Amino acid sequence: MRSLFAVPLLFLVAHVSAKVSRLSHPHTYHKEHPDTYINEADFKDSGYPPPRTHAPSSNIWATLSNDEAASVIHWLHHQNSLNLTSAKKAGAWDNTISVVDLLAPNKTDANKYLSGQGPKPPRYAVATIMFGASEHPYVQDIGVGPLPISNNTHLLDLSYLSTKGSTKIRNYNSDEELQTKFLRNISTSVADITKDLINMTITTHDHSQGDIWGIDPLWIEDDRVIYWVSYFGNVQGFQFDGTTLLPQGLFFKCDITGRDISKWSVKGWYYNGQFWNSTEAFRDAWEHGKIQKADQINSPYLDADQHAWYGTDRFGKALPHDEKAPPVSIAPEGQRFAVDSKNRYVEWMDFSFYITFTRDTGMRLFDVKYKNQTILYELGLQEAIAHYAGSDPVQTGTAYLDTYYSFGAYAFELVDGYDCPTYSHYLNATFHAGEESRTHRNAICLFEMDMQLPISRHSSAKYVTVTRNTALVLRSVSTVGNYDYTFSYYFYLDGSIEVKVSASGYIQSAYYAQNDEYGYRIHHGLSGSMHDHVLTFKADVDVLGTNNSFAKHGAVASKESYPWSAGHKRSTMKMNRTWIGSEDESRLHVEGNGQVQYLVLNKDETNEYGEPRGYRIMPGMGGLHHLTIQESEDLINSQSFATHHMYITKQKDTEPRVSNANNNLNPRDPIVDFNKFFDGDSLDQEDLVLWVNLGMTHIPHTGDLPNTVQSTAQSSFMLLPHNYLKGDPSRQTKEMVRIQYGKKNEDMAKVHTFGSLPHPRGLLNLSSAYADLTQYAGDVAIRKFPYDPLHPYNDTDSIV
Amino acid sequence: MRSLFAVPLLFLVAHVSAKVSRLSHPHTYHKEHPDTYINEADFKDSGYPPPRTHAPSSNIWATLSNDEAASVIHWLHHQNSLNLTSAKKAGAWDNTISVVDLLAPNKTDANKYLSGQGPKPPRYAVATIMFGASEHPYVQDIGVGPLPISNNTHLLDLSYLSTKGSTKIRNYNSDEELQTKFLRNISTSVADITKDLINMTITTHDHSQGDIWGIDPLWIEDDRVIYWVSYFGNVQGFQFDGTTLLPQGLFFKCDITGRDISKWSVKGWYYNGQFWNSTEAFRDAWEHGKIQKADQINSPYLDADQHAWYGTDRFGKALPHDEKAPPVSIAPEGQRFAVDSKNRYVEWMDFSFYITFTRDTGMRLFDVKYKNQTILYELGLQEAIAHYAGSDPVQTGTAYLDTYYSFGAYAFELVDGYDCPTYSHYLNATFHAGEESRTHRNAICLFEMDMQLPISRHSSAKYVTVTRNTALVLRSVSTVGNYDYTFSYYFYLDGSIEVKVSASGYIQSAYYAQNDEYGYRIHHGLSGSMHDHVLTFKADVDVLGTNNSFAKHGAVASKESYPWSAGHKRSTMKMNRTWIGSEDESRLHVEGNGQVQYLVLNKDETNEYGEPRGYRIMPGMGGLHHLTIQESEDLINSQSFATHHMYITKQKDTEPRVSNANNNLNPRDPIVDFNKFFDGDSLDQEDLVLWVNLGMTHIPHTGDLPNTVQSTAQSSFMLLPHNYLKGDPSRQTKEMVRIQYGKKNEDMAKVHTFGSLPHPRGLLNLSSAYADLTQYAGDVAIRKFPYDPLHPYNDTDSIV
Repeated sequence: MRSLFAVPLLFLVAHVSAKVSRLSHPHTYHKEHPDTYINEADFKDSGYPPPRTHAPSSNIWATLSNDEAASVIHWLHHQNSLNLTSAKKAGAWDNTISVVDLLAPNKTDANKYLSGQGPKPPRYAVATIMFGASEHPYVQDIGVGPLPISNNTHLLDLSYLSTKGSTKIRNYNSDEELQTKFLRNISTSVADITKDLINMTITTHDHSQGDIWGIDPLWIEDDRVIYWVSYFGNVQGFQFDGTTLLPQGLFFKCDITGRDISKWSVKGWYYNGQFWNSTEAFRDAWEHGKIQKADQINSPYLDADQHAWYGTDRFGKALPHDEKAPPVSIAPEGQRFAVDSKNRYVEWMDFSFYITFTRDTGMRLFDVKYKNQTILYELGLQEAIAHYAGSDPVQTGTAYLDTYYSFGAYAFELVDGYDCPTYSHYLNATFHAGEESRTHRNAICLFEMDMQLPISRHSSAKYVTVTRNTALVLRSVSTVGNYDYTFSYYFYLDGSIEVKVSASGYIQSAYYAQNDEYGYRIHHGLSGSMHDHVLTFKADVDVLGTNNSFAKHGAVASKESYPWSAGHKRSTMKMNRTWIGSEDESRLHVEGNGQVQYLVLNKDETNEYGEPRGYRIMPGMGGLHHLTIQESEDLINSQSFATHHMYITKQKDTEPRVSNANNNLNPRDPIVDFNKFFDGDSLDQEDLVLWVNLGMTHIPHTGDLPNTVQSTAQSSFMLLPHNYLKGDPSRQTKEMVRIQYGKKNEDMAKVHTFGSLPHPRGLLNLSSAYADLTQYAGDVAIRKFPYDPLHPYNDTDSIV
Repeated sequence: MRSLFAVPLLFLVAHVSAKVSRLSHPHTYHKEHPDTYINEADFKDSGYPPPRTHAPSSNIWATLSNDEAASVIHWLHHQNSLNLTSAKKAGAWDNTISVVDLLAPNKTDANKYLSGQGPKPPRYAVATIMFGASEHPYVQDIGVGPLPISNNTHLLDLSYLSTKGSTKIRNYNSDEELQTKFLRNISTSVADITKDLINMTITTHDHSQGDIWGIDPLWIEDDRVIYWVSYFGNVQGFQFDGTTLLPQGLFFKCDITGRDISKWSVKGWYYNGQFWNSTEAFRDAWEHGKIQKADQINSPYLDADQHAWYGTDRFGKALPHDEKAPPVSIAPEGQRFAVDSKNRYVEWMDFSFYITFTRDTGMRLFDVKYKNQTILYELGLQEAIAHYAGSDPVQTGTAYLDTYYSFGAYAFELVDGYDCPTYSHYLNATFHAGEESRTHRNAICLFEMDMQLPISRHSSAKYVTVTRNTALVLRSVSTVGNYDYTFSYYFYLDGSIEVKVSASGYIQSAYYAQNDEYGYRIHHGLSGSMHDHVLTFKADVDVLGTNNSFAKHGAVASKESYPWSAGHKRSTMKMNRTWIGSEDESRLHVEGNGQVQYLVLNKDETNEYGEPRGYRIMPGMGGLHHLTIQESEDLINSQSFATHHMYITKQKDTEPRVSNANNNLNPRDPIVDFNKFFDGDSLDQEDLVLWVNLGMTHIPHTGDLPNTVQSTAQSSFMLLPHNYLKGDPSRQTKEMVRIQYGKKNEDMAKVHTFGSLPHPRGLLNLSSAYADLTQYAGDVAIRKFPYDPLHPYNDTDSIV
C-alpha cells in the first residue's frame, strides 16, 4: 500500500482506517451556535483581494460546511440501525464514519434550478461508513438529507450510483494495526538474515531502521487475500522525505485472509531473482550459503547515510548571475477577476465558474460559462492511476487508485511566490474525514499570468499589431504520498481552456536487481521503476444546451479528380467529417499526427455560415495518455476508464463519476465499473460527457533525482471554441497595440493602444513582489469535542 | 505564388527577382574605411544591457558583415566569367546577384578549431546568382572565398552541397514583370464577365480593385509551364493586410512556357465547379447564361468594404476589469545572462551558445554547450512547408517552400513589451540581398521568464520545498507574407531545451464554392482552406563527442512469469530497448500514447550505473507533425524531409541542410533532395543529425478570424538530458525555498532560502515595465551607392 509519508500517519489514511481523529459526546452545538460556525468560505481567503461579485445562483455544489458536516455526523450517530461508534472510541471491529462529503445534486435538477425552471436542489451529504463489526467488514456510501437536519432528514440508499447496484464494498484491509504487528513478527523471526542481506533489522521492539509495506491494491488469489511486502530503508535522522528511494529488494508474501491473525501466514520469500516458498526454506537457503547476494555496497540504505543525493536543498556549483533575483511578475493595478467568496464563484473577462472541493478529487469546476452561455456543466478530476511494473512482486502489484487516498486531503497550503505569484488570490479548502473538519489554508490560488507569447500578432508593410496573452490560472497542488500533482486550469482570451497536470516530488523506485527491463539504473542499487500515470478528467461539455453530438473531423490523404484537372487524379487531402453515433463506438484513441479534430457540436445550432457551433477537445503539452499495461490484474474491473485516451458517454444522473474512491478495496467487484456506462446509448443530440485521460509513461532517469522536474513532466488538454463565435473574441481586449510606422527619417511611429496605455505610473514597492513565507502555517482543524468554532486549533507542526 | 503583402513588393521577392535594390559603381571602400564598417553586432543592440562576457572562440558561423558582403559583391562583379550586371541596371535578361550569405564552415573543420586541434576555418560566402541571359534561365549558388578578399579568393564550386551534383536550378519564373502584364491583358479581355461574376475588374490601366496570383510552385505538365491563377480582392482604402481573406473564386490556367510572352496562352477558366477550356468557351457560356453564378452577396470583396471582420483592432464589448493593467514581468536586478555582442555569444546559467542569422532560415544556434560540454553543434530551422488543399486549382497547387521567400528577410523588429518583455535584451539581425545590406533592429530578443509553474516541489509531513522555474527565452518572429511564425527557444534549469513555433497572422483562405470537403465556411463566401504546416528543424546533437547512437526505449505491454509468480503469467509492461542501426530504418513516426522515448546515446560514455548518457527528443505542445498529403505533386522531389516526424542521418559535410531555398523554382529537380541523404550509412556510434518536424494540420474555423491565435497554434519539441548527469541540475539554483513548519501555535515557520532572499528592496519605477513604442523604427538599410556606412538611411515608412 502507498507509503504516504515517512512518519506514522494518523490522519492520512483516514478514509477507511480507524486511525482518525474522533468525535465523541455529540451535542447540539448547531442550535447553540447558529451564527458562529466556521466555513472555509467565510474567514480565511487571503492574498491580494479581488473585486467582489455576486454569483447569479447559489453554489449548489459547494463543499459541505463544517456545520453541515458536524450535523450530519451527529445525526448519523443517532441512527440505531448503523450501530456507530464514535471515531475516538472505535476499534477495527466497530462501525465508524470515515468521510462526510457533499452528495452533488443531479444534473437534471441542477439545470432546472440554474435555468429558473425548478427549485434549488436540496442539500444532501454522502457518508462513507466503515462497517467493521463483522467477519466480513465492508465500507458503504450512504446518503443523508435533506440538509439542514430536520424531521425530513433520512438515510438515502445510493445504490443508484453504483453499476453493481450497491455502494457496499468488501474491505480486506480493515485490520491494519494487526498487519503491522504481523509483519514485524515475521521480520523479527528473520532479523539475522535481513541484517546479513540488507544490513537492517525491523523487529517488534525496534522498527526505527525501516518500514515494511507492499502491493496496492491487495490481491485475491483463489479466495485468499495476498499481501506482498518489501523492506524500505528509513535512515535515522533522515531529513528528507525520500523513503520511496530506499527499496531494499527483500520481499515476502503474506496470506492475510480473515480477521484472525493466528491464521495469517507467510507464503514465500523473494530476493535477487530467487524465490523460497516458506520462511523455513528461506532460512535454510541462507544458512547453507545458497542465497546469491547482491552487493551491499549498492544498497541505497547505506548510501542514504552518506550523501545528499536524495535531498532537494540547493547543492552543487553556484550558477552564474544566480545571486541576482530573477524576473518576477507583478500586478500593478490589482486583480482583474471578481470573486463571490461565499459562493466560490469567479468571473474573469467573459468566463465565470463555480468551484467546489471534495475529499476524493480536490478542486472541481461547475457551470463554466463563457459569454453567459454554459460551456461546461462540470470540469474536474475523477480518478488517478499510477501503475508500476517490475521484476519484483511489489512493483508488479502497485497500481494506485489515488482517490482512495484522496486529492482533497493532500491539497496542502500553496507556497506564495513559488507555487503561485505573490499577487495571487488564495482560497481555503475544507474536507471532513475522521469526524474532523480540516481546512487547508491557501490551498487554491487564482492569478492572471502573462503567457509571454502574444495571443496574436501580424506585421505588414505599414503596421504591426500584437495582442497580449493574459490568462487566468486556477491552481491547487495535491501531494499524494511521494508525488506532487499540480492541477492548473488556464482560461484564455480566445475562449479556450487548458487543463494541465504536472508532476513532481519523489519517484517510487525499485531495487536494482533483475530490473533492467523495467527501468534504468539511476543510483547505486536503485532502479527508476517504470510506471504509467493516467489522470481521468470529466468534461461535461454543453454547447448551447445539452443536446450535443460528437464529431471527428479528420484530414485524410486522398486522390481526387476535378472539373479542371482533365481527368487526372491529384494527390491531396480532404476533411472527413464523421459522427460518433453511440456509446458502441465512443472509446477513442487520439489518432496520429494531430490530423483529427475531436468536436462537441450542436447540430441544431449552426452559425450563419451553416457550420454547427461547438467546442473542440485538443491534446496539449505531452498529449493524452492511457495505460500501457493491458487488462491489469491489479485493477481488474476498476481500470476501464484508463484504457483509452478519451470516452464519450450519454450523461445520466446515475453515472456522475467513473469510479468510487473505495473501488481500491476490492477492484474485482468495484462500486463503479466504468465499463457499464457503455450500454449503446445514442450520442446523437444527447447530453454528452467526455472523460479525458492525461498522464504519461514515466521511465525515471537520473534527472528524476531527487524530484521529478516539471519542465517536461506535464500533460494537458485544451477545450477551444470551434466555429462557436463569429471571430476571435480576444479582439475585445484593450491589451493590444498597433504601430503605424513613421515616415522615413521624419515622424515617430504612431502607436495605437486602444486605451491600454498610458501605462500605470508611479512607484512600486518591490517588497510586494515577494512573500513573507514565515506565515506558512498549515491547516486549521476543527475539533468537534471540545468544540469551539471560534477558536480552531492550529496544527502547524505537521501539515498532515 | 505567395502574395506577400498587399502593397507592391520591391524588396520582398528579392531572392530571384530583378526587383531589388541595386549596387552600382562598386568601389574599393573596403580599403578606404577599414575601421568604419557597420555590422549588426557593432552598433545597435538595445534593451536592458546584459553583463558582458567573452566567447571562448570566434563565432565562425557569424552572419557576413556588411563589409564582407559588399566586398564579395564587388569582387564578383569583376569576375568576367559571370557576366554580371549590377542590380540597379539589370533586367530579366541579365545575370545578377540575388543574395550573398555565409557559407558555413564544414563541421569537420569547425570542430577541429573549437577543440583546439585545427586552425580557424577561413570565411567563405555563398552568392546566389540569377543567370537571366538565356532562353533557359537558371539560378546557381556559387562560393566565394577565402575572405577577406585577397589574391587567394576564388570562385568555389558548391556542387558538393547538392544531391544532384549541381547547384544550378532552372528558373521558370524569371519574367515576373511580363507575367503581370500577361495576366492583366487577359483580365482586361474579360472585364465585362468579371464585373458580372465577381463584381470587380482588373485591367491594364486600372488594377486597383484587386490582384491576380496563383499556384506556388509552378507546375510542369508535359514540359509546359503551367500557372493557375485566381482573383483576389483589394478594397480601396483597405487598412488591414487581409487580402488573403479575399479570394474571388474565379481562376484561369496559363501556359507561360518560354520567355516569349507572345507564345503564352490561356488554357482554361474555372468558376463555381465549372471548367471551360478556353477564354472563348468561357465567354460563350457567360453570354448564353450558362454560368451558374455564386451569390454575389456572399463575396468577401463586397463584405470587406462594410465591416471590420478582417480587422485586428480592438472591437466588441469591453471586457470587465480590462481597463486595469494586467500582470507584467519585471527584472528587478537586471539581466542574469551574459552576452559577447561581437560574437553573438550568450551564456545563461550552465548553457552557452552562438547565434547566427541568415537570409534563408533566420536565427540559428551553434555550439550549444551545457556544463562546458557541447550538446548541439547546430540547432535551427531548415525549411518550412505550408501545403494547402482544395477543390480549386490554386489551393490544390499551393505548397509554399518558405525559405525561398526566406525567414531572415522577414524577421522584423519585435514589439517591445508585447512580443517580448520590456526588460529583454535585443539583438539586431542583418542579411544581404539585392546588393543591399539590411539590418532589422531588435529582431531577436533574449529574456528570462518565470514559467509560473515550479520546476520541482514536494510537500512532506515536516516541510515543503519549491524551486522556481526560470527559463531563458531566445525569440524572433518572421512574417512570411500573411503568416507570422514566432520561433522561441527555451532553456531550462534542468538542462533541457524547448524549440517552439507558434503561428499567427492571416490565414490564406479559399472561395467557398465547392469547398466544403476542404474547409469550414468561416464567413460569407469564405472557406478556411485546410493546410498542413511542417517546419523542419535540424538538431545536430552531440553527446560527449560526435560518436553517438540512436535508441528507442519503449514501454510495451507484455505477459511475464516470474520466480515468485508460481508459473502464472502476469499482465505487465516492459522497457524495450532498440537501436536504429542505419539510415535504412531512420525515418520515424512518433509512436502513439507517448510510450516510446527517442534517445541520442553515447554507448562509450556510460554513467557510473552503467547506463549510456544521452539526450532525449520529446514532442512538446502540439506534438510533431508531417504532411498529410502523400506524394504531393506540387512538391515532387522536394518534400522528403516532411513525410515523417523525425529523421536521423549520419552527419556529412556535404549534407548540411535538408533543402535549398531555390528548390522551389523546380521542385522536380531540386538542388537538394533529402531522400538522397539516406544511403544506408551506419548510425552506430557515428556523428548523428536529427531532423525534427514541427507544425500542425490547420483547418481554420471562425476563431481564426481575423488572425490565428497562439493560445493553441503552437508546436514544440524538447531536448532533455537523459541519464546524462547524476541528478537534476536545477538543484544548483538558489531560487528555491524550504519551509520547515512551525510548532503548533507557537513558532513561525522556518524559511530556508539558500541566499535567494532577502528579496530586492526599494522602489521600482513602473514606467520601466512599459515600452516607449514610438521608437519602433524599422530597418537600417545600407545602400552601397552612395555609400556612407556611418550614416545608414532609415526606412521606417515601411519595414519591407
